[in-house]
Amino acid sequence: MDEREARLGLSCVVEPGTAKVAAAIAEYGAGEVWQGLLRLGGRNTLGMRAREFRPEPVLARAAALEARFVIPGDPEWPPQLAELDGCEPVNGLSGVPCGLWLQGAGDLAELAGRSVAVVGSRACTSYGETVATELAADLGDAGFSVVSGGAFGIDAAAHRGSLVSRTPGVAILAAGLDQAYPAAHRPLFDRIAERGVLVSELPPGEHPTRVRFLGRNRLIAALTQATVLVEAAVRSGGRNTVTWATSLRRVVAAVPGPVTSALSFTPHRLIREAEAVLVTTAGEILELVSPLGRPAARPPSEHRPTDDLGPDELRVYEAVPARGSLTAGELSLRSGVVLASCLLILDELEGRGMVLQNDRLEWRLPPRQRLAEPLPFDT
Amino acid sequence: MDEREARLGLSCVVEPGTAKVAAAIAEYGAGEVWQGLLRLGGRNTLGMRAREFRPEPVLARAAALEARFVIPGDPEWPPQLAELDGCEPVNGLSGVPCGLWLQGAGDLAELAGRSVAVVGSRACTSYGETVATELAADLGDAGFSVVSGGAFGIDAAAHRGSLVSRTPGVAILAAGLDQAYPAAHRPLFDRIAERGVLVSELPPGEHPTRVRFLGRNRLIAALTQATVLVEAAVRSGGRNTVTWATSLRRVVAAVPGPVTSALSFTPHRLIREAEAVLVTTAGEILELVSPLGRPAARPPSEHRPTDDLGPDELRVYEAVPARGSLTAGELSLRSGVVLASCLLILDELEGRGMVLQNDRLEWRLPPRQRLAEPLPFDT
Repeated sequence: MDEREARLGLSCVVEPGTAKVAAAIAEYGAGEVWQGLLRLGGRNTLGMRAREFRPEPVLARAAALEARFVIPGDPEWPPQLAELDGCEPVNGLSGVPCGLWLQGAGDLAELAGRSVAVVGSRACTSYGETVATELAADLGDAGFSVVSGGAFGIDAAAHRGSLVSRTPGVAILAAGLDQAYPAAHRPLFDRIAERGVLVSELPPGEHPTRVRFLGRNRLIAALTQATVLVEAAVRSGGRNTVTWATSLRRVVAAVPGPVTSALSFTPHRLIREAEAVLVTTAGEILELVSPLGRPAARPPSEHRPTDDLGPDELRVYEAVPARGSLTAGELSLRSGVVLASCLLILDELEGRGMVLQNDRLEWRLPPRQRLAEPLPFDT
Repeated sequence: MDEREARLGLSCVVEPGTAKVAAAIAEYGAGEVWQGLLRLGGRNTLGMRAREFRPEPVLARAAALEARFVIPGDPEWPPQLAELDGCEPVNGLSGVPCGLWLQGAGDLAELAGRSVAVVGSRACTSYGETVATELAADLGDAGFSVVSGGAFGIDAAAHRGSLVSRTPGVAILAAGLDQAYPAAHRPLFDRIAERGVLVSELPPGEHPTRVRFLGRNRLIAALTQATVLVEAAVRSGGRNTVTWATSLRRVVAAVPGPVTSALSFTPHRLIREAEAVLVTTAGEILELVSPLGRPAARPPSEHRPTDDLGPDELRVYEAVPARGSLTAGELSLRSGVVLASCLLILDELEGRGMVLQNDRLEWRLPPRQRLAEPLPFDT
């Protein structure tokens, strides 16, 4: 029996993230493990399942979906999944998947090679939805594939943002590829599959369970270079994905939000505890995943002409009235700067175009500056 | 001429934050510096001002306000202001004030001894206003005096929150105590003075200027143990107060907000650059200012009964149907856990009240749990 058949069988009878089986495969190979299960037979539930297993119904379902089963070493197998071997378990789960069921026009290894996970609450707010959509669209336009879990809320917003970008996205499902969960997302999954990939560790026909959601989260974290959490209440599946990303030493980022929203709780807590980096734009995420690559967009300029002035220069400049004009002597008195210095400073300010002298040798502000500078200073 | 008279004169002729004068006072004493100015006389603007200075009009204005002038060493002088001596200048300003003009029923040294500054944008959002008000009210109820600059927006919200709390607040003004700026805040300032204190480095009658706002910000930072920035655009006076707080090694905290708001820019940037700690509640601020004192309120519990379960236990628990009941054998098959383990686990789960056995020896969930646990797991 060959490796691929054994892995296909194992993927159908073993639950995702069963550490013992993954460790046995790593040590003895999938063929040996499968034979071992068959030998165990009725003495063990996995053995009973293995004995009863027939590949034909699963393969028929997969063929109907035009789905493919990939295993380690295949060109489309993402090599970064190997890091799940020996990684700290989360909720008792760990291990490299036996294989992955894929559907869609995209190449998983290629897309996952430059990818970012965007995850968060199902019951998100319109703020979270907006942010997730925009981040995903910008990440996609920067050439990064957006990976998420296909759930309601933040996941769906991330997928939709990814769909309007130039890079295909990836949805990782906790059920078989033909069991759209939630069912309302069947059209969304179909659109992702047009250019991207749908991924499941479970064979077609399988339904989602709580353990399977947890196992799926480990794949989201393991496939991507960074996990970005957008909104998550105190209790959330997104938090679980972050734990995986931390355990796998991936970049973890979180988007802040209003402190008045319960959905900001987990992002803020992760930032406070330095488990996540605060990010506000796709550019800031790209800085984290490509340290030698593209820099983030420059932040808006804080510079004003008055920033270059020393305290005496600022006092003289301040003394020039918003309306009308004053002599250098009057400005000296008003500013508290001695006349000799005051004259030098006024020359300097004139050179910078910050003050003008009229024909009576009085000083005034140039017309534009009167409008541009809000007075007084904020706060 | 005594120290107090000299400092009163200096406070009337020297601009706040004039480093050279503050340094000279520290070295030679205020009396010497004042005499020196008088000797300079017409050769220097400060000297001219000193010669022309008459205390009577200022003292008359102060008396009308029932204002007091305090100097270093007075019981009401906040000793922490000494740290402005030798502190890194900001915008060319530095130095301990010559004296402070105070108005109101509160004792400045006492209030400032346990105080937090809450500052931010004048053009704030209702979100920022809500957060500033609530933080200030909670800080006040925890016995901390809230200090701010009396401006529109966040400052005013902080003062209003402070007013409804059990601790009097402090407003630090960039103008003389009789020159309410903004004028619309005269009633707010009067209410603060009923139990708290209004503070100015400038004598009555003086108007605010841009430099004076900057000098005022240094007092806000120097008086308080922590500065909390609530909303601030890329360019903001609150940023200036934060720079002072950093320079004075005070605690700096910032409240996050929606990344879609321009007013979240500076708080998020400070958090990203580790210049400020992300805070979401007054409790988190109190943790920063009283490291040996009261801990923050405990965050909401994340704990659920299923958190204590290992993977096999979770699989068995998951296999118990939401409706109806199954035998241990059926649960073993469904969960993939061998029957012997399954029986032990079911006993254990029963002990924890997570499953029940009916009279046909079938297992089901207890009634409450069916309702309490949302299915499926979020994301």
